[in-house]
Amino acid sequence: MTAETGAALHALVAGLYPICRSITGDGLRRSLDMLRRHVPLAIHEVPSGTAVFDWTVPREWRIRDAFIEDSAGRRVLDFRASSLHVVSYSAAVDAVLPLAELRRHIHTLPAQPSVIPYRTSYYAEAWGFCMAHDALEALPEGLYRARIDAEHLDGSLTYGEYLHRGETEEEVLLSAHCCHPSLANDNCSGMAVLAFLAARMAGRRTRLSYRFLFAPGTIGAITWLARNRETALRIRHGLVVAGVGDAGAATYKRSRRGDAPIDAAMAHVLQHAEPSARLRDFSPYGYDERQFCSPGFDLPVGLLQRSPYGEFPEYHTSADDLDFVRPEKLAASLALIENALSILEQDRHLRNAFPFCEPQLGRRGLYAALGGDPDAARRNLAMLWLLNQADGSRSLLDIAERAALPFATIAATAAVLEREGLLVPD
Amino acid sequence: MTAETGAALHALVAGLYPICRSITGDGLRRSLDMLRRHVPLAIHEVPSGTAVFDWTVPREWRIRDAFIEDSAGRRVLDFRASSLHVVSYSAAVDAVLPLAELRRHIHTLPAQPSVIPYRTSYYAEAWGFCMAHDALEALPEGLYRARIDAEHLDGSLTYGEYLHRGETEEEVLLSAHCCHPSLANDNCSGMAVLAFLAARMAGRRTRLSYRFLFAPGTIGAITWLARNRETALRIRHGLVVAGVGDAGAATYKRSRRGDAPIDAAMAHVLQHAEPSARLRDFSPYGYDERQFCSPGFDLPVGLLQRSPYGEFPEYHTSADDLDFVRPEKLAASLALIENALSILEQDRHLRNAFPFCEPQLGRRGLYAALGGDPDAARRNLAMLWLLNQADGSRSLLDIAERAALPFATIAATAAVLEREGLLVPD
Amino acid sequence: MTAETGAALHALVAGLYPICRSITGDGLRRSLDMLRRHVPLAIHEVPSGTAVFDWTVPREWRIRDAFIEDSAGRRVLDFRASSLHVVSYSAAVDAVLPLAELRRHIHTLPAQPSVIPYRTSYYAEAWGFCMAHDALEALPEGLYRARIDAEHLDGSLTYGEYLHRGETEEEVLLSAHCCHPSLANDNCSGMAVLAFLAARMAGRRTRLSYRFLFAPGTIGAITWLARNRETALRIRHGLVVAGVGDAGAATYKRSRRGDAPIDAAMAHVLQHAEPSARLRDFSPYGYDERQFCSPGFDLPVGLLQRSPYGEFPEYHTSADDLDFVRPEKLAASLALIENALSILEQDRHLRNAFPFCEPQLGRRGLYAALGGDPDAARRNLAMLWLLNQADGSRSLLDIAERAALPFATIAATAAVLEREGLLVPD
Repeated sequence: MTAETGAALHALVAGLYPICRSITGDGLRRSLDMLRRHVPLAIHEVPSGTAVFDWTVPREWRIRDAFIEDSAGRRVLDFRASSLHVVSYSAAVDAVLPLAELRRHIHTLPAQPSVIPYRTSYYAEAWGFCMAHDALEALPEGLYRARIDAEHLDGSLTYGEYLHRGETEEEVLLSAHCCHPSLANDNCSGMAVLAFLAARMAGRRTRLSYRFLFAPGTIGAITWLARNRETALRIRHGLVVAGVGDAGAATYKRSRRGDAPIDAAMAHVLQHAEPSARLRDFSPYGYDERQFCSPGFDLPVGLLQRSPYGEFPEYHTSADDLDFVRPEKLAASLALIENALSILEQDRHLRNAFPFCEPQLGRRGLYAALGGDPDAARRNLAMLWLLNQADGSRSLLDIAERAALPFATIAATAAVLEREGLLVPD
Repeated sequence: MTAETGAALHALVAGLYPICRSITGDGLRRSLDMLRRHVPLAIHEVPSGTAVFDWTVPREWRIRDAFIEDSAGRRVLDFRASSLHVVSYSAAVDAVLPLAELRRHIHTLPAQPSVIPYRTSYYAEAWGFCMAHDALEALPEGLYRARIDAEHLDGSLTYGEYLHRGETEEEVLLSAHCCHPSLANDNCSGMAVLAFLAARMAGRRTRLSYRFLFAPGTIGAITWLARNRETALRIRHGLVVAGVGDAGAATYKRSRRGDAPIDAAMAHVLQHAEPSARLRDFSPYGYDERQFCSPGFDLPVGLLQRSPYGEFPEYHTSADDLDFVRPEKLAASLALIENALSILEQDRHLRNAFPFCEPQLGRRGLYAALGGDPDAARRNLAMLWLLNQADGSRSLLDIAERAALPFATIAATAAVLEREGLLVPD
Repeated sequence: MTAETGAALHALVAGLYPICRSITGDGLRRSLDMLRRHVPLAIHEVPSGTAVFDWTVPREWRIRDAFIEDSAGRRVLDFRASSLHVVSYSAAVDAVLPLAELRRHIHTLPAQPSVIPYRTSYYAEAWGFCMAHDALEALPEGLYRARIDAEHLDGSLTYGEYLHRGETEEEVLLSAHCCHPSLANDNCSGMAVLAFLAARMAGRRTRLSYRFLFAPGTIGAITWLARNRETALRIRHGLVVAGVGDAGAATYKRSRRGDAPIDAAMAHVLQHAEPSARLRDFSPYGYDERQFCSPGFDLPVGLLQRSPYGEFPEYHTSADDLDFVRPEKLAASLALIENALSILEQDRHLRNAFPFCEPQLGRRGLYAALGGDPDAARRNLAMLWLLNQADGSRSLLDIAERAALPFATIAATAAVLEREGLLVPD
């Protein structure tokens, strides 16, 4: 993965960053439009009020402006400076209040006094602002005008979808939530990485089909699942991608099943590529894997992130900005996903066609020459492992794990042995 | 558990302590009578000579007095001072012997010279005394009169039994041995704790039935099993309770099965209540779990104790006295057992009635309000775990373990979700 | 095992050591003849050109002499000094060359400049010498005569086989490779230990039959398997024995199955006899277990060695000499194998004939007397474990492992309980 890729990913993150996204509305639509420059997303609009399982598609939120003005008419908080300043999906307000009363509608983080927190109020009607605690503390007593020029109206929930068709109808689901406003890592990073991945897929012949989903968190995933119950049955592997640009080590959270092929593939890739990476068991708190892994679906969908949600101080604050996201980490995350998908593409069961004793590899020129080439030694070992273990009960990934060799080495060696007729499809 | 409970338990231990119990006889009967002040035990008498599996109910032992007198007629050892001074079930003797010969019938602990050891001779006819090594060493040479005024005669073996009937015939067996003489922890503590537990059960409606057994060790358990083979088939869970009053951390020894519900429940309770508690695998040496876990029965019966038998210096000596047993530890042991039984009572399989995606908890007012209430966070997490895992394959205890949350939190949250119709019986 | 045995084993190693063995030829035959003084081996000759699975029995190598002479006619390298000086199976040569050109045919170990490496060229035609790097560096420039007086001709591959017949046709395979020239540990040690083991078996009645195989590495095992496919089906347990005389801790490499009885028996023996011993999982690189554990056979054959191949500096060099092999380690290795075989001979499933409660051991005089005999305590514990666990589902070895007691204690105690009618065959 070149430095160029990292820079291009970061540029897309930077483009998405300022937009005021929410679970519905124009910020979401503009973000999906920006992704369409990279991948030909189909855009779906689901009307407000549509029943989706236990939920209802909410009304659309339109926000034009928001501010707090002091008595001199100076904006002491301005939505135009950061989309985080307004509680997402906030009700409208236009009122003049004393500071003491206004404070009850202002969220701050006293322990991190210089950052703006991110707050939502999707399913309870309320209005509110978010600001740095220091800035709030600096306000003199007095009357302030609180203005949120927003409305909720019947409209639709928007999501984008792209299907890369492979040779089979078995699908891989790749999903990024895109409802958070100006948070660079959470989840402009996931949107950018998946858009690039989809673009890179375009020219490739693949065995599996790949479905990319860009939808608002929770309600978007629920809406998609409600409308795609048949499609969901075809999902063989899946990955939620979120928060993949920060400097932290990669973190993979296993699917609810815990031993799905995506779990094995991600574990293998991380172990070889990022020894400091973290593997975690499924838990029901998190991103949209919550919905994909609900017991009625129980899809084999894991989560890739870097620093885990909720465990770093920048999480859900204005400190999750464009500096917090690193070009090289975005590129590395993309590479991790591509490596895992490459395993899922190539993994298969082969059988040793000469199972009684070892076949004579030297006669076929398969043994590297005498001497100390360590790559040759590794390839020789890969041959021996494959011939010994390829009895139909173990896939190439199983054999790579057993041999403690990278999947790529095993797969490349298997191809050589297949060409020689020593391994055959099981 | 109040300090009052601890004091009351210790008082019962103190009442039982001086009595000279053995595997048969009046000491045993008087002890059971004392327990009947707390719980309406049925008393069973099984005649000497009754065949019980490979064993025979022994003759009854009656002891009136025992002493060693020096040539001046002074008692240098007196049974009235401690029932440990006579080998339990000792044959009678009345003889004048030189000290050198008498010594062959006196058991001491040279490594712990100030304590009297506890010795028995149940199945080989012999007479003997036990005394502190220092006291023996202080005796001048000379002639001594050894007198044990005891007899073995046809009578019966006594045990006490109490059945608390629940809604089902599925039984929990709770058993304490009561054959040891003046040893406070081993097992006045177990007798007292189980008597209190039985008393507290009296007023309760329970799903399971609870059978309390107070019987002499080994031969008592064997006799009960021989007479109750049908009843034994109804035992779903069981616990031998012995040595539960000392200051040591709780020790749970798993049933022979190793993965019985009682094993899981005790492990869960100890992990949350006493992080220093010890879990041990079954071994065939120990208390009456030896009989309950013999391969023909293989009952799911574990052992709860504090310091493990044989691993502390006071074990089977006069140092296991009323100071060695702590009121607060007796009460804590009772609480541990009640907590484990509470899990067995409440554990069940529920199913998420809304298995496709998460149900909307906010709409139902189930989510705690915004903000930092850690109990609310834990309850929210418990809801998510329950909804995600309640697919019929896992019990509430399984889910509590998976979620690393206390069973009580999971059970209380499950009750809320059941009331809301989100969880239903499987 | 007496010191005498160690000395006798070392003497046999010393006899085998100087012979120039290869995968065919007279060195191999002379070595087998030397073993026949201990065990009545049947000698098999398989003609060159015979097809054995994917391989062909190679032509026979005859070597008469080999040297490098300087221009003054002085031998600067002489095959008579060490059979390692010639690449095994080397083509013939007789040529005068400048040193620079000759160097291309001389193998040394620059990092271990004083030792001669061991090299082979079995399946590619080439000629070559091996020598100490220091000795090579000391040679002045100039012309040298390189002479290898050898030929490859149609002949046969030789192996030795001995079958000790037991009561059943179930076989134990014990195999040592005998193709390496003057390397004392690798594998004069294995040849000697197995020859002695076979000799000691001669007078014994055994339940299992024991097949000893002395054959050249790889091609010998392949040839034997190709000619004995029916026999291979009778192999219940097996052990490759190689490099068992050095001072290192014993190393057992598990069979491909990983949980075969031989794996359990060797693990048990090593754990109790050599706590520093190493247990390793199967890997497809190594000695003839590669062939026995090829997937078509998948025989339960492990490997016993001391320092593992390739992991010590003396490996495949002239430093693997008679000093490197210790009499006491040879004897200890023989004892380890005999102990493991003793487990395989005696292991069986017994059932407690008195499964309801414990049988009364005291009445039968089975309990050791009161007091502190630690052996008695261990025997008592062994009785309890056997009676508790002998329900037909566990073998004696399983019970020994569960009880963490030596198999010998469990087996001896089982014999006592069987005699008393307390344990019966399942």
